[in-house]
Amino acid sequence: MNESAVHTADHHFRHHDIFGIEQLSVQDIRHILDTARSFREISVRPIKKVPTLRGKTVVNLFFEPSTRTRTSFEIAAKRMSADTFNINISTSSATKGETLIDTVRNIQAMAPDILVVRHSCAGVPQLLSRHIDASIVNAGDGAHEHPSQALLDMLTVQEHKGEIAGLQIAIIGDISHSRVAISNFIGFTRMGAEVRVAGPGTFLPQGLDQFGVRVCRSIEEAVAGADVVITLRIQREREKDSLIPSLREYSRFYGINDEVLQGAQPDAIVMHPGPVNRGVELAPEVADGERSVILDQVSNGVAIRMALLYLVLGGNRADRGQEGEL
Amino acid sequence: MNESAVHTADHHFRHHDIFGIEQLSVQDIRHILDTARSFREISVRPIKKVPTLRGKTVVNLFFEPSTRTRTSFEIAAKRMSADTFNINISTSSATKGETLIDTVRNIQAMAPDILVVRHSCAGVPQLLSRHIDASIVNAGDGAHEHPSQALLDMLTVQEHKGEIAGLQIAIIGDISHSRVAISNFIGFTRMGAEVRVAGPGTFLPQGLDQFGVRVCRSIEEAVAGADVVITLRIQREREKDSLIPSLREYSRFYGINDEVLQGAQPDAIVMHPGPVNRGVELAPEVADGERSVILDQVSNGVAIRMALLYLVLGGNRADRGQEGEL
Amino acid sequence: MNESAVHTADHHFRHHDIFGIEQLSVQDIRHILDTARSFREISVRPIKKVPTLRGKTVVNLFFEPSTRTRTSFEIAAKRMSADTFNINISTSSATKGETLIDTVRNIQAMAPDILVVRHSCAGVPQLLSRHIDASIVNAGDGAHEHPSQALLDMLTVQEHKGEIAGLQIAIIGDISHSRVAISNFIGFTRMGAEVRVAGPGTFLPQGLDQFGVRVCRSIEEAVAGADVVITLRIQREREKDSLIPSLREYSRFYGINDEVLQGAQPDAIVMHPGPVNRGVELAPEVADGERSVILDQVSNGVAIRMALLYLVLGGNRADRGQEGEL
Repeated sequence: MNESAVHTADHHFRHHDIFGIEQLSVQDIRHILDTARSFREISVRPIKKVPTLRGKTVVNLFFEPSTRTRTSFEIAAKRMSADTFNINISTSSATKGETLIDTVRNIQAMAPDILVVRHSCAGVPQLLSRHIDASIVNAGDGAHEHPSQALLDMLTVQEHKGEIAGLQIAIIGDISHSRVAISNFIGFTRMGAEVRVAGPGTFLPQGLDQFGVRVCRSIEEAVAGADVVITLRIQREREKDSLIPSLREYSRFYGINDEVLQGAQPDAIVMHPGPVNRGVELAPEVADGERSVILDQVSNGVAIRMALLYLVLGGNRADRGQEGEL
Repeated sequence: MNESAVHTADHHFRHHDIFGIEQLSVQDIRHILDTARSFREISVRPIKKVPTLRGKTVVNLFFEPSTRTRTSFEIAAKRMSADTFNINISTSSATKGETLIDTVRNIQAMAPDILVVRHSCAGVPQLLSRHIDASIVNAGDGAHEHPSQALLDMLTVQEHKGEIAGLQIAIIGDISHSRVAISNFIGFTRMGAEVRVAGPGTFLPQGLDQFGVRVCRSIEEAVAGADVVITLRIQREREKDSLIPSLREYSRFYGINDEVLQGAQPDAIVMHPGPVNRGVELAPEVADGERSVILDQVSNGVAIRMALLYLVLGGNRADRGQEGEL
Repeated sequence: MNESAVHTADHHFRHHDIFGIEQLSVQDIRHILDTARSFREISVRPIKKVPTLRGKTVVNLFFEPSTRTRTSFEIAAKRMSADTFNINISTSSATKGETLIDTVRNIQAMAPDILVVRHSCAGVPQLLSRHIDASIVNAGDGAHEHPSQALLDMLTVQEHKGEIAGLQIAIIGDISHSRVAISNFIGFTRMGAEVRVAGPGTFLPQGLDQFGVRVCRSIEEAVAGADVVITLRIQREREKDSLIPSLREYSRFYGINDEVLQGAQPDAIVMHPGPVNRGVELAPEVADGERSVILDQVSNGVAIRMALLYLVLGGNRADRGQEGEL
């Protein structure tokens, strides 16, 4: 930790937006994790509030519904004293005939500092950033990236395992529909971990080797000797789409249970981005067992989002000479 | 008032959660009413805000929609400077396949201080409290209890009648579907009032005598000599369910109008938990008449909810040694 | 500007509610615009927050959905440190059988300071104001008025043209369904501008001369020599209602494009209340061109709403002797 703290002290975080893990260097990631670690303590204080972002405007602009991620960003923003606004465009009259870019330019005209954006299409956050001044934090774009999830996963691994470098990380399940998986591939390999994946053939897209991950033929192979086992959520729609024969069969071959975990390291931890389908991708005994760090992930999510909101405006500050406000 | 203030000064409020009136002693109820009375003044100040709950996180977790109760809790929380978050689970993607307990554990992981919970099933608040550290305040669970409503009713009666003990209180209408009625039965009898009920046979469940209330054969019998007349809301669905022949007939036999009230005490007050079906359970002349204290109930609702939010965290403080923050 | 500042210093703003432009004198309008101009600067500060309305309760009571206007009022309120609450009645259970006036009396009982009201029926804000103490700001009532929109339009014109008096203002489109048009007619003519309108016959109601506006036979006639061209949004439903043959034909005859604008003043500006149907009422080359001040309108909207929230409570203060709080 001391070593990475030194790294951080020397490091200038210069990102005005967070589109994905792809754009972040090892030092950037360390910087975010260190910052999040220092913010984690705020949420366990009796008075969970610091004035860091007082007078800043954070807009949660969600084109896909998500109570979970939206609430996590909202809590992160309010604990730093920002003013928050939730705009759910799918349910809004604002979209009638208006282009996406016009919608965002309109929001920009009300002078937000940060837009937290979720959209069902990959690349929307980058597209929008070309038209506005506010910082954008990607809260999930299509099957592209979900950087705050990967960062909270890394923070959770670091919390339980110390260093990420050298760890064996197994990611199991519906890789082809998962922006969480993509962000995790990039993040964990960049930090020096080895990543293996397993899942039904219909869930494993072509070209996974470009991410430097190892595709395994069975869940047993993926889990063998793993320090961390991440299982992804199975959308129930996949059954209807005939991508898996049935949830029951999926569970039998790819569900994480105590038996499967016998092949992992004795102190392996189990993670899941939530919400969990108990008995499908994760057996209840594991979800509630001592290996599960799922709720640590949620707590770390608030800390990571505090760090991201803080750092993108700090980037702002450095770029634009508005020193001393934060 | 002086007498009850002395009681309060000696009394330690030790409830970490508010599930219902059932759990509250006479001293607890006095303590809540005294505390609410002292908070009532905040809402009539030019600056309606005190720092009491600054840095506290209050989550309104509503599994049933309710603008009215949710807004009252939200106003109460914000007037005490808490940060508030609204999570409406019925409209949320968070529930897909996730268990209720997993949902609440996830929220707990974001370190809320209080969860205000409404759910269509009786007992959910108690169930959830076994899995989380945050205080729970029941905002209505099935046909079980709605404690903040009963407390605001008691505060309103106290405001207009001084002492609750010895009063005659008539509760009219759909008793069998009413958590408000149950909480009121327990609260008013515990505070020494006598409670009578009346309503169509289909609306009077078995076993009402266990609450120590008197079941009357007619509305006239229930209202005779009453100091307080509480009429309950008739859900319009009851007509479709054939529990009453028609709303019109219900109104004729069980509606509260000036004629019915002639049997009550000359200074009797009329209450209703809202929203009122004018011309069904309550005649417009009564709703708008000088006996009606319905809007006082609403105002007192904010004060009661401020008191509950304050006291459950004070209970926290006493239990956990975090003195001096509030 | 100095002249109008002098006017303002002498002028007491005495309106407890804002129902429409109709009620406002020239001095009132100047006062609002001057106040908004002084607030505009707050939204470009690093810390966009002033304590002006701390401890005040602003309720957005929307009976029609509107993300855009509601967010603008919410941002205005929060930048002045008010507590804000959003109540969307159309989606709420609160209305079941309850009258509009009972709903608003209930909200009043929770002691709000301001209700921002949008409703599909003309006159609802005035109706409600007779039953409550809180100030009401009309955020659009039926086809009656939308005063904050007209004020932000005037502020935008003033910003780009200096004085409103003497300007030629063309308003094009669906006049008969537009509360924006009505409020603009009253506001711009009262401030000394000349207003001309054009649109398909089905969009031009009888009696427009009562507003002192000139009805033109063609868009070219309306735009000839205009300093300001305001085009209104075409609701796509109008096509189905057979009020226009097709959106395409509407665009051909009444869409604003560079060719049409050749008849306007060389420095004419183009405005639109949003959201824009690109290619229908407004050509993309104009929407994105240098004449377009549409995004200035949005920015000015926040400033106007800050001014209105501030001034109606200042009116309060003057009326009720609560000096010194704001």
